[in-house]
Amino acid sequence: MIDTSVIEAENAKRVRDLETDYVALGEKLDRRGIDIRAITERAKGFGVAIPSWGTGTGGTRFARFPGEGEPANIFDKLDDCGVIHTLTRAAPNVSLHIPWDKADPEDLKAKAAQYGLSFDAVNSNTFQDQPDQEKSYKFGSLTHTDAATRAQAVEHNLECIEIGDKLGSKALTVWIGDGANFPGQTHMGRQFDRYLASMKEIYKGLPDDWRLFSEHKIYEPAFYSTVVQDWGTSLLTAQELGKKAMCLVDLGHHAPNVNIEMIVSRLIHAGKLGGFHFNDSKYGDDDLDSGTIDPYRLFLVWNELVDAEGTPGLDLAHMIDQSHNVTDPIESLMVSTMEIQRAYLQASLVDREALAGYQSDNDALMASATLRAAFRTDVDAILAKARLEDGGSIDPVKTYRVSGYRAVVADQRPKVSGAGGGIV
Amino acid sequence: MIDTSVIEAENAKRVRDLETDYVALGEKLDRRGIDIRAITERAKGFGVAIPSWGTGTGGTRFARFPGEGEPANIFDKLDDCGVIHTLTRAAPNVSLHIPWDKADPEDLKAKAAQYGLSFDAVNSNTFQDQPDQEKSYKFGSLTHTDAATRAQAVEHNLECIEIGDKLGSKALTVWIGDGANFPGQTHMGRQFDRYLASMKEIYKGLPDDWRLFSEHKIYEPAFYSTVVQDWGTSLLTAQELGKKAMCLVDLGHHAPNVNIEMIVSRLIHAGKLGGFHFNDSKYGDDDLDSGTIDPYRLFLVWNELVDAEGTPGLDLAHMIDQSHNVTDPIESLMVSTMEIQRAYLQASLVDREALAGYQSDNDALMASATLRAAFRTDVDAILAKARLEDGGSIDPVKTYRVSGYRAVVADQRPKVSGAGGGIV
Amino acid sequence: MIDTSVIEAENAKRVRDLETDYVALGEKLDRRGIDIRAITERAKGFGVAIPSWGTGTGGTRFARFPGEGEPANIFDKLDDCGVIHTLTRAAPNVSLHIPWDKADPEDLKAKAAQYGLSFDAVNSNTFQDQPDQEKSYKFGSLTHTDAATRAQAVEHNLECIEIGDKLGSKALTVWIGDGANFPGQTHMGRQFDRYLASMKEIYKGLPDDWRLFSEHKIYEPAFYSTVVQDWGTSLLTAQELGKKAMCLVDLGHHAPNVNIEMIVSRLIHAGKLGGFHFNDSKYGDDDLDSGTIDPYRLFLVWNELVDAEGTPGLDLAHMIDQSHNVTDPIESLMVSTMEIQRAYLQASLVDREALAGYQSDNDALMASATLRAAFRTDVDAILAKARLEDGGSIDPVKTYRVSGYRAVVADQRPKVSGAGGGIV
Amino acid sequence: MIDTSVIEAENAKRVRDLETDYVALGEKLDRRGIDIRAITERAKGFGVAIPSWGTGTGGTRFARFPGEGEPANIFDKLDDCGVIHTLTRAAPNVSLHIPWDKADPEDLKAKAAQYGLSFDAVNSNTFQDQPDQEKSYKFGSLTHTDAATRAQAVEHNLECIEIGDKLGSKALTVWIGDGANFPGQTHMGRQFDRYLASMKEIYKGLPDDWRLFSEHKIYEPAFYSTVVQDWGTSLLTAQELGKKAMCLVDLGHHAPNVNIEMIVSRLIHAGKLGGFHFNDSKYGDDDLDSGTIDPYRLFLVWNELVDAEGTPGLDLAHMIDQSHNVTDPIESLMVSTMEIQRAYLQASLVDREALAGYQSDNDALMASATLRAAFRTDVDAILAKARLEDGGSIDPVKTYRVSGYRAVVADQRPKVSGAGGGIV
Repeated sequence: MIDTSVIEAENAKRVRDLETDYVALGEKLDRRGIDIRAITERAKGFGVAIPSWGTGTGGTRFARFPGEGEPANIFDKLDDCGVIHTLTRAAPNVSLHIPWDKADPEDLKAKAAQYGLSFDAVNSNTFQDQPDQEKSYKFGSLTHTDAATRAQAVEHNLECIEIGDKLGSKALTVWIGDGANFPGQTHMGRQFDRYLASMKEIYKGLPDDWRLFSEHKIYEPAFYSTVVQDWGTSLLTAQELGKKAMCLVDLGHHAPNVNIEMIVSRLIHAGKLGGFHFNDSKYGDDDLDSGTIDPYRLFLVWNELVDAEGTPGLDLAHMIDQSHNVTDPIESLMVSTMEIQRAYLQASLVDREALAGYQSDNDALMASATLRAAFRTDVDAILAKARLEDGGSIDPVKTYRVSGYRAVVADQRPKVSGAGGGIV
Repeated sequence: MIDTSVIEAENAKRVRDLETDYVALGEKLDRRGIDIRAITERAKGFGVAIPSWGTGTGGTRFARFPGEGEPANIFDKLDDCGVIHTLTRAAPNVSLHIPWDKADPEDLKAKAAQYGLSFDAVNSNTFQDQPDQEKSYKFGSLTHTDAATRAQAVEHNLECIEIGDKLGSKALTVWIGDGANFPGQTHMGRQFDRYLASMKEIYKGLPDDWRLFSEHKIYEPAFYSTVVQDWGTSLLTAQELGKKAMCLVDLGHHAPNVNIEMIVSRLIHAGKLGGFHFNDSKYGDDDLDSGTIDPYRLFLVWNELVDAEGTPGLDLAHMIDQSHNVTDPIESLMVSTMEIQRAYLQASLVDREALAGYQSDNDALMASATLRAAFRTDVDAILAKARLEDGGSIDPVKTYRVSGYRAVVADQRPKVSGAGGGIV
Repeated sequence: MIDTSVIEAENAKRVRDLETDYVALGEKLDRRGIDIRAITERAKGFGVAIPSWGTGTGGTRFARFPGEGEPANIFDKLDDCGVIHTLTRAAPNVSLHIPWDKADPEDLKAKAAQYGLSFDAVNSNTFQDQPDQEKSYKFGSLTHTDAATRAQAVEHNLECIEIGDKLGSKALTVWIGDGANFPGQTHMGRQFDRYLASMKEIYKGLPDDWRLFSEHKIYEPAFYSTVVQDWGTSLLTAQELGKKAMCLVDLGHHAPNVNIEMIVSRLIHAGKLGGFHFNDSKYGDDDLDSGTIDPYRLFLVWNELVDAEGTPGLDLAHMIDQSHNVTDPIESLMVSTMEIQRAYLQASLVDREALAGYQSDNDALMASATLRAAFRTDVDAILAKARLEDGGSIDPVKTYRVSGYRAVVADQRPKVSGAGGGIV
Repeated sequence: MIDTSVIEAENAKRVRDLETDYVALGEKLDRRGIDIRAITERAKGFGVAIPSWGTGTGGTRFARFPGEGEPANIFDKLDDCGVIHTLTRAAPNVSLHIPWDKADPEDLKAKAAQYGLSFDAVNSNTFQDQPDQEKSYKFGSLTHTDAATRAQAVEHNLECIEIGDKLGSKALTVWIGDGANFPGQTHMGRQFDRYLASMKEIYKGLPDDWRLFSEHKIYEPAFYSTVVQDWGTSLLTAQELGKKAMCLVDLGHHAPNVNIEMIVSRLIHAGKLGGFHFNDSKYGDDDLDSGTIDPYRLFLVWNELVDAEGTPGLDLAHMIDQSHNVTDPIESLMVSTMEIQRAYLQASLVDREALAGYQSDNDALMASATLRAAFRTDVDAILAKARLEDGGSIDPVKTYRVSGYRAVVADQRPKVSGAGGGIV
């Protein structure tokens, strides 16, 4: 754990400058009719879920280069999530992946409680074969042509619900790798029918206060067709399942050039937006750190979400889903948490009354400028102030480095082999 | 018009080779358990609609380079469509664009009857301002923030239905250019609400036996967001309007890499596939000749359609939508008609029983090979035979060139200026 | 013209807040070891060229919706450019398009001198046919299969040099629409040979102190292949022509997902980067306002340029190339000028010493954070201060609107017809 | 090994139909002035190299689902390659990957000789860490900021040359994963300088009759920038290294929509085209079986190559580079070999004289039709005839299945674990 004294010592070095910047920004915002305290409270009320798997070093089909002190199990992962939340105060939830994170529920809850963490949506995994698994998912899981394989995949999802229920989760996220690598490999219509039938079985097992998130992705691991390839298919799925079924948007799962904020708007219209997997990407599902490639796109997504606040029934799950191949995962997750929070705050600064007027008058130039004015407001001081007031760190990355946490766990945790590779 | 004697003289030169090839192909197909006569009858039963506007030379925002003897009005265009159908026997319908093609309905019907042509879906135009138009569509039509402008656009669509009704059309295709060039320019949610409200007004005016086609497009002429940007939004529209509202797929209106045949499959599942705009593309909405860039993609779309034959309620409108910038439009439309027909026939040759078996067994290699075997069957002889038997031309392009039609109309029709350009 | 009194009155309203913000920012930068005065001087030293054609309202192949008071000729356009420079003080150059802007050189120079404007690179136009033109460019210009057509296109380029020479220009930008709409339409190798041969003729006519800019573009107006489709071909061209030939990068002319800042880096390595056409895009060559779609990408391009400052031989031409379809072109050009200047300043704030250290240590997280820290610095106060000190406007758009310039010229200039359209 | 008697028995079932089809096709080609014997000889003269790694089952970053009887080492792989060549007679070369395929050169040559196989280009591997490796490639290999790491990577490449030299190889293919996942992570210019310096070291070690292939790729495993991202950078590399350095084109390594056949044409122009990695793709570097996604694109690439036959200095290495995740790799490689051979033959049928005439006359329609006429010629009979005459199989896949080879090796070879996964 990060010792409070380290946080305090580091904060002490930065608090004066922070106050200066906070006051200056406060005055500037005041001129725009914005109360910096209100924005600061929004920052403090914000939280994102950390994916347990994101605390390990990721890789590609070519190789995985392990990092120091990687978590060996879900308890190590929860320790790492604890660090993230302790320093940023904005990552109070953890999203588990089953069976990777299977453990005694009471032990999990106890460990999470140590850091004030709760459990967000549970993720099922039918895109890999597990050592003890009877039927292989090589040719599909929930959509397999073999009924017994589909039943096994359904059963796994039901078990995920059961596990999540014990942990206080309220949602199941279903993402499958099913699809095809060749035209003709599958009958696309019948495959989708099988998908819906399996999903209906899972839906039946959903507790009343749970939701089912359907996650679309254009490609990978299937390279010709993917069963739930886009939001249109995800919407059809959620519509056919029922009102507890919602769509989940992963920012990296779309075709090139696609306007993601527009999909967000359409799903809100349809009453079917359930949540997000945040990350950034330049080419495919790159799973890069949020806000590092196209921060304005992240802002535009948040602009839709902040605009839709108060929409009846809108209740979004915010999760990170990234792969950290060349950075310390804890650092990447802390920075990503803050970048997502930043975009949320920037979107909160949009002068919506002025914007609505420009839109109504077709004053495209001023409407566009209104968004950019909010985007380029440097809210660093607000973010830091919110963390400080909540007992977190003004500069989480520096504080983390000073704490020596990574070196400590590197000592304690078993070395992980270089794994991966050979899969070309 | 193309004189019958020209067709006969040209056919006489080719009929012997055709018979040889037809017999050889017949034997080959027979070995695969396929009756060439049945396929020939399918060819003869096939028809696609010609877009009236496609008979003129197209252009880009940079320039338009006129061709010889371009049609000056809808009657000239119908003459050109007549040539296409006379020679190919596979283009019995014409799709009109209003107001470009406005004329006395009786005159239109009389002219069409000359060539055995009927009228397919009518297209409305609210993406341009007409000389006599009160409200401008610069900032939108059916989605404009101004109610009077929306009303004008609705009214235009209702007029299109009225015109089409007199001509025997049974469908209205709505494609709008509305969207935005800048983030913030429009409120995407409210804009879509306005779109649906306008569409509902149009839908109310639809005769009982008509259908309304909603056409999506990712971008152009709007360059940041388009109201009906993809099939998901088109589906939402069709769902909210009612059972006479269907989705129309234009092959060039998708994001890069998107699997179009999968969208076709999903829309069939949803009971909302209404028709196609055929063309080909490499980059954006290139509107190139069907089958010239990626003929296998065209085949895969047809594979879904042939597979779905017999689906209750499935009744598709097949239209071409191309822009002919560097070819004689009549030639391009004839060749495109035949390429679409070719893909339809190739898809008709797929051994669906074997394919279903391979799919069921997850024999991806043989499933994929089964599609390719059908695709690479050279059905030229069947296509030519079908034309010949229906009084058309074995080689439409050669026959057309021999006929001298273009030179004749170049003499008769007024010269068109170089127009276009300056729009960079 | 914009009256000085209007500027002063408007500035008076904003100068106090500006000073407050400037001081606060100065303190903040000072903490990072940056002298705000030095950055302000950089802002004042910055200039971009306005494309004469950008002052008119643009359009698409579907339609052009004219604006109020559009410039009727090059003198009107220079007046509009004068407004832009007067208010922003950062647009001292104009880039002409021949033959659109042909006029008596002395008159042009006199008009430009009125506003302190100079002439940047001259652009030739062989992608359209002019009314009096002997040979058509329908099937190509510099690469046409017909030698006489190529000679005509070469001759036009030589005339552009001659005109530019009289105006004080020092560069010719060659962008051609030549390519093909169909596989097979052209022999790609021979077409490129013809291109090089034509370019060599033009190169021969280049004065010693001139440069020739080769501009690549992936597609449009050609939709299957474009002769100079990417920077690789542009580089080959510049290499074969000689040391006065350089590559020009238009930000909107690349395939989806392409890393443009990397191309910039490679061209700098090759000693062949000559200049830019700035704009922004989401899909194709959308020609949207700079910095409105992906401002971080614009920053990353500038990051390469600022990093390369001092590279021997590096001397870049900065030009805007946009199409303003839904905004007042003067407003868009002013805002774009400032957005480009903003990105330049943000890139100037990068802590390059720290960055080099992180790069050397493979500290990807801190390296990435270092760039973002510079990017999110709100340099508005510096930009405004620079304008103010140079006699420009603190808020150019507001001042322009207050001035009533558009209404005045709308009165004086002839109405332009709705033109365009019909080209689908 | 496949027993000759199996091949003969299977061929006996098909030889009569083959002769019928061959004669019919011969007559048809004769009418077009093409001698089927000459084309058959071209088929017999054609050979492609099999990637040793392609004989194992591939995977994705999500999972790898092993197949039956996977090769455990390079000798098993050579056995599998032997099967492919025995049945198709068109895969006489094997491309090795070092260190995966390290073994005693004499043993390798002996094993290869058993099947009449030779060794094509050797591939180095610095995109993974090997168990015994001193320096990690996590942050780069040939471009690493650390000189010792670069030296190690150079040394590995020199060893590859040494190994290849003993095996009779004449080329080294260098593909590296170096790049960055974040803007700022690397200095793109200095990184490229380091790349060139390392490559020059390798180039120095190249025997006189060897060539060095530089392979570009837009992304993966690096997700923001890749050092050799496109053919422009590959060209710069080959130019700076010298005349033995050539560019290698992998069909799946480009940005969306890119015209690959045009890149082929440009590299031929530059005298720098060295070879190919054949595969097919729909989204990214999908490494799917050649000709299964866009067979016309494969044809268009071959159209450039056949057109360029006889170009002085043009000497291409044809290699397959695919990942077989859901098929039997031997089957996929056999089919791919034949699909590549098919495209080569189809391109050989193009009426180049007619085409040149249409191109010269700007008859885009007929030029395009000329290519398609060649493409849709069903050359199956020629391919089968060529195999038959060379002692191969009329139907390699069926024959292979009948032979029971896979079941035999599944018995003999060790089971491979499910590996992969966890890398998300």
